[in-house]
Amino acid sequence: MASQTGVIFRVSTFGESHGPAVGCTIDGCPAGIAIDVEALQAELNRRRPGQSAFTSPRAEPDLVRILSGLQGGITLGTPIALLVENTNSQPDDYSETLALYRPGHADFTYDAKFGHRSRSGGGRASARETIARVAAGAVAKQMLAQIHSSPINVVSWVQRMAHIECPIITETLTQKIVDESELRVPDSATEALMKDFLTQLMNSGDTAGGLIRCRAQGVPAGWGEPVFDKLEAELAKAMLSLPASRSFEIGSGLASTYMTGRTHNDAFTTDPKTGRIVTTTNHSGGIQGGISNGMDIEFSVGFKPVSTIRTIQDTVDEKGFKQKLQINKGRHDPCVLPRAVPMVEAMTWIVLADHALRARLNRKDSLLEQSTPFSPLRGTKQT
Amino acid sequence: MASQTGVIFRVSTFGESHGPAVGCTIDGCPAGIAIDVEALQAELNRRRPGQSAFTSPRAEPDLVRILSGLQGGITLGTPIALLVENTNSQPDDYSETLALYRPGHADFTYDAKFGHRSRSGGGRASARETIARVAAGAVAKQMLAQIHSSPINVVSWVQRMAHIECPIITETLTQKIVDESELRVPDSATEALMKDFLTQLMNSGDTAGGLIRCRAQGVPAGWGEPVFDKLEAELAKAMLSLPASRSFEIGSGLASTYMTGRTHNDAFTTDPKTGRIVTTTNHSGGIQGGISNGMDIEFSVGFKPVSTIRTIQDTVDEKGFKQKLQINKGRHDPCVLPRAVPMVEAMTWIVLADHALRARLNRKDSLLEQSTPFSPLRGTKQT
Amino acid sequence: MASQTGVIFRVSTFGESHGPAVGCTIDGCPAGIAIDVEALQAELNRRRPGQSAFTSPRAEPDLVRILSGLQGGITLGTPIALLVENTNSQPDDYSETLALYRPGHADFTYDAKFGHRSRSGGGRASARETIARVAAGAVAKQMLAQIHSSPINVVSWVQRMAHIECPIITETLTQKIVDESELRVPDSATEALMKDFLTQLMNSGDTAGGLIRCRAQGVPAGWGEPVFDKLEAELAKAMLSLPASRSFEIGSGLASTYMTGRTHNDAFTTDPKTGRIVTTTNHSGGIQGGISNGMDIEFSVGFKPVSTIRTIQDTVDEKGFKQKLQINKGRHDPCVLPRAVPMVEAMTWIVLADHALRARLNRKDSLLEQSTPFSPLRGTKQT
Amino acid sequence: MASQTGVIFRVSTFGESHGPAVGCTIDGCPAGIAIDVEALQAELNRRRPGQSAFTSPRAEPDLVRILSGLQGGITLGTPIALLVENTNSQPDDYSETLALYRPGHADFTYDAKFGHRSRSGGGRASARETIARVAAGAVAKQMLAQIHSSPINVVSWVQRMAHIECPIITETLTQKIVDESELRVPDSATEALMKDFLTQLMNSGDTAGGLIRCRAQGVPAGWGEPVFDKLEAELAKAMLSLPASRSFEIGSGLASTYMTGRTHNDAFTTDPKTGRIVTTTNHSGGIQGGISNGMDIEFSVGFKPVSTIRTIQDTVDEKGFKQKLQINKGRHDPCVLPRAVPMVEAMTWIVLADHALRARLNRKDSLLEQSTPFSPLRGTKQT
Repeated sequence: MASQTGVIFRVSTFGESHGPAVGCTIDGCPAGIAIDVEALQAELNRRRPGQSAFTSPRAEPDLVRILSGLQGGITLGTPIALLVENTNSQPDDYSETLALYRPGHADFTYDAKFGHRSRSGGGRASARETIARVAAGAVAKQMLAQIHSSPINVVSWVQRMAHIECPIITETLTQKIVDESELRVPDSATEALMKDFLTQLMNSGDTAGGLIRCRAQGVPAGWGEPVFDKLEAELAKAMLSLPASRSFEIGSGLASTYMTGRTHNDAFTTDPKTGRIVTTTNHSGGIQGGISNGMDIEFSVGFKPVSTIRTIQDTVDEKGFKQKLQINKGRHDPCVLPRAVPMVEAMTWIVLADHALRARLNRKDSLLEQSTPFSPLRGTKQT
Repeated sequence: MASQTGVIFRVSTFGESHGPAVGCTIDGCPAGIAIDVEALQAELNRRRPGQSAFTSPRAEPDLVRILSGLQGGITLGTPIALLVENTNSQPDDYSETLALYRPGHADFTYDAKFGHRSRSGGGRASARETIARVAAGAVAKQMLAQIHSSPINVVSWVQRMAHIECPIITETLTQKIVDESELRVPDSATEALMKDFLTQLMNSGDTAGGLIRCRAQGVPAGWGEPVFDKLEAELAKAMLSLPASRSFEIGSGLASTYMTGRTHNDAFTTDPKTGRIVTTTNHSGGIQGGISNGMDIEFSVGFKPVSTIRTIQDTVDEKGFKQKLQINKGRHDPCVLPRAVPMVEAMTWIVLADHALRARLNRKDSLLEQSTPFSPLRGTKQT
Repeated sequence: MASQTGVIFRVSTFGESHGPAVGCTIDGCPAGIAIDVEALQAELNRRRPGQSAFTSPRAEPDLVRILSGLQGGITLGTPIALLVENTNSQPDDYSETLALYRPGHADFTYDAKFGHRSRSGGGRASARETIARVAAGAVAKQMLAQIHSSPINVVSWVQRMAHIECPIITETLTQKIVDESELRVPDSATEALMKDFLTQLMNSGDTAGGLIRCRAQGVPAGWGEPVFDKLEAELAKAMLSLPASRSFEIGSGLASTYMTGRTHNDAFTTDPKTGRIVTTTNHSGGIQGGISNGMDIEFSVGFKPVSTIRTIQDTVDEKGFKQKLQINKGRHDPCVLPRAVPMVEAMTWIVLADHALRARLNRKDSLLEQSTPFSPLRGTKQT
Repeated sequence: MASQTGVIFRVSTFGESHGPAVGCTIDGCPAGIAIDVEALQAELNRRRPGQSAFTSPRAEPDLVRILSGLQGGITLGTPIALLVENTNSQPDDYSETLALYRPGHADFTYDAKFGHRSRSGGGRASARETIARVAAGAVAKQMLAQIHSSPINVVSWVQRMAHIECPIITETLTQKIVDESELRVPDSATEALMKDFLTQLMNSGDTAGGLIRCRAQGVPAGWGEPVFDKLEAELAKAMLSLPASRSFEIGSGLASTYMTGRTHNDAFTTDPKTGRIVTTTNHSGGIQGGISNGMDIEFSVGFKPVSTIRTIQDTVDEKGFKQKLQINKGRHDPCVLPRAVPMVEAMTWIVLADHALRARLNRKDSLLEQSTPFSPLRGTKQT
């Protein structure tokens, strides 16, 4: 289960950062979904490093190859295996640091758990593992667009970098608008401040963290589960499974812990246009009791500053002897946030895809609708 | 999976708030663990309402009955079923509100998902479901004490109620100290402020939220998994699955998102007394790359204000007609925090128990140690 | 997972034979299913001992109590917990044999695995554990009748006892016909022979095994999975998980291993009445490539002779010393077959229920049908 | 779950017969296992077609590539992805039959389930999918050899082809002896008869089935689970998941259903040489109550005759019109048995690997042994 998530739409990833390849299998995607491989590749391109002056220069095409589960571009209902070869792995970049446990990295804990040092630049702890997640997220996104009658939209953006925060974001934000920003901050004044800040950090070999906000629009009421698999719990797990993430807040999150019940409760009303039951505020972030209520699902994910810094750090070697560590080589971002945006979206799509399928089994009436058995009559195939 | 958690130490809960009973089964607890039923009951007593002026007066003994999995107080290795009968269910308390969706509650979303209204005061969404979690957590705690050579300790407390925050907590805090406080705030000056605040809220029929902090000491390095089942991800899911929880932060959490890498990185050193590799700071909260590093595991969980308030609220009925809702009866806490403390601890124990067992399978050398087959020799039983 | 089965319709059982109770939880049953508790109890009554001269006289009412998941007789979509108290446990019946490993029983292997001797007459290995399965099977049966438009029928019977075999069974066999026979053999001449045989065995303290045949009619084409979770593989696992079962054959089973391809292949044709595609023979037993083809699903399950015999047997004690064992007391059937009939049916229902739900997620077209979100319009609730 | 098996040692396969590749991921293999890739490849070579006059001539090297989870030939504890490219896929071989449902094949049922026809010669239903299982089985085998102090050996062979049965096999049979036989029948006289029989079948375009027997030696007492995951149930599921398998018998299997208890019960005694508790007979096939007893685990698997025959067959097309089908091209074995031998062994290894790891968590005493936390002391790394 270490490398697998989902009950029905099951995503498993594999691959070390500097091994031969990274990839994933998706087991549980229904048959009949058209997969747009270019759109899938486009999501991977969003995640790729080397796209701006503020990301690491590791330049690989990250071309995805679909090994199974598709025929003529349509899913077969069988496992979809996606593979991205590692073409530019440079394990030597890391060799000098191999003997030392890098502060903030997983070197020590992997050694404690597995009894070995990874030659592989972080191995599974590398952000490169998230290629497989972004690929799986793209499949999830395409599936949801085809099994659901009304559109679902997920968009996330850099809400805050260290102390520099973006103004309030309107409901009409799109992924396209976010991607027009080099740092994925949908406010040019904020982005300019962040660029200055990042340039200073890069000059001094330091790094920053911050907050990503994510919004899923169009999720119908009724997705999620009552107890352990609450929708916000699943999202929290998905987000905390991303490298460098440190916090998760649903809806008003920490702000809600300062409110009283009178302020926080979202009053129900009816939308005069659609007749749908809605809430007048959305402190709940679209989820109540673990189940979506049809409002926008909104949450924030905090990321720590990148651990690889260009300065002399105190650490120890494998035998516990104190050592000094200085990292001068290797390829590292000063801030994980811009590239974390597609990762947050991908994990959101993966969680939603699983719960979209689970929700089809909620109750008798929806099950009855589809209970017609397959029985081709002569000349008319009923499906 | 809705009501189940854990890969090896699997806890499933069942039961509606006002149905006949609540309970759980634990599948995967090893044989040979001595279960102290009184200690288990004591944990349930900590969770019970009616213990102070600040909790709901629903007074039930919540006596646990062990239906299976034990023989002479020792676990058999088979599923342990724990049952608590509901002796004081009063469904009529809620009947008047049945036609209306209560703001902040799961009435609407349960209806959207399951197509029915629960007569049962929240049903599975009620805090009463957590009885089963606390019982399972007590078993997890006792198991860990017996399979692990050095002691593990979990303690949590009310760190902040709305704007009233507790001073920094020393490392020597114990559950006993926390429980001496009526509000489970280990600082009497802070508690006095909180009591005043709560009294005001109760007088006005309003409610509060806040923050619980939890610390797990003694967890060895090497527990957790690299990718989706990172230890912090599992804890985040466990905490966000608790009723009314809204946020999760591991280690320095949101504070870490304001730091730079130089400040945030936890330098490794060697403890001169024990020879163990430790970190000089603990911004990571004891987990790096999803795996424990042997330092204290620390995290915070935010809770929203209780949704049941005594005021007229806007809402709609099942047909979407706008209605006014006034709740005067029923049994409700003004603040969930004091009673959430044992819930947070229980979920922590459950997650740790699962990962303690999973960690035994990490690598060859630890597996070899225990590979001696069962082979009783005449007169000497080797186990 | 030891005591759990199913991916979506998840059944977990608990309880020792002579502990306080046995029971199960069912997680994943959709909301809105009407549960007929009398019909459920009737299935348990079919399983009960003490119904004829040929079953053990342990007489308990085995009254089932539903602890959760139901409101007004309708499933809530939450876990259904079913409990049967053990009212007639007599651990003393077994005390004399406690020191010795009974041949053919699980005493030795439980000791090897768990490091303890069960005081509990077999504990989880007792046929009493199957009460929980029969209860869960009854829920599965009722659910299938309500989510599926055409009726599904499962009937099983004693096909052979030792060398006494029942003539070929027509397609119109019903559970009612089977139950009219004391031994659940739907042929009175065969039953008479079997009764004579059983009487002789009982007089000499010996026991018999045999074969149960099961037929599921009305399962539509398209249930099952391609690889590891093939429908016949799931049935095989379910049947081999029953106490005393030794073999599983799907369709023509072992007989098919003697045929050539020309004889064995089931030719496709079209039913002139219904227009459905059918096969002219059914050597496949209704499953091809792991997936149902709409024909009757047929399989056989072999059961060994009951291990408890009234004769002096060679065995050893826990220290490996050779001992003589003579069992004179206790309550044991001379042949498990008649009571295994409802167990085989229950496990079949459980497997079918899980795959019925899984099959709803097979492909896009069936998913689209039910994608209408919950959106109550003013005055008209659309579900 | 469709394409995944195992609770801890989790094997997932992917890939269509005539798609780009087949492969698997293994999640849950402990770190520190040395993988002999040549030995792994040798197992794949045993499964390959084109090795004798009696197997299909599809000639592909089936070279395995390890994409992840290994560093310097040692497992990292992370998912191991294994890939075999399809270099000789000839989808045109099957194009003529695409419109018709081939009797005995999964064409119709895949269509019923997934709503599509596979262009891929059976897709996941092809025996080519078992490449991934054999590869995973080889890893399981190597892991077991390294985590277990005494050797475990699995050997299977062709016990019977149609009516031609092999004499009783001694306990000293090895895989090497079996592989010296072209048909994997460890008796040359029997093999000669079978060869004659197969030659006749091939001349007439017909096919045969039969029985494979498998024996696992050295499995210690205490592996397996009490209820649903009984070791024989898991083996039954694993075997019935193989293409063309029709039956499973544990131990004396069907023969035991004809015995009485007095004949069938395996008496316990003590081995004078080793002091181990053993049974004087082994009708149980090494498993009692779902748990291994330390004796040889023995079982039989029946396979139907190959469905692809060279004769005119009645069938229908997708619209239900009756058609005649004649298959003249394509690559097919007259009998699946010789190549099924490594598949049966592989699935056995996979089941044993999972239960070997699960058994480490059985009870307190074995868990205590390995509870030493990772704590490197200065100069001496304790692992």
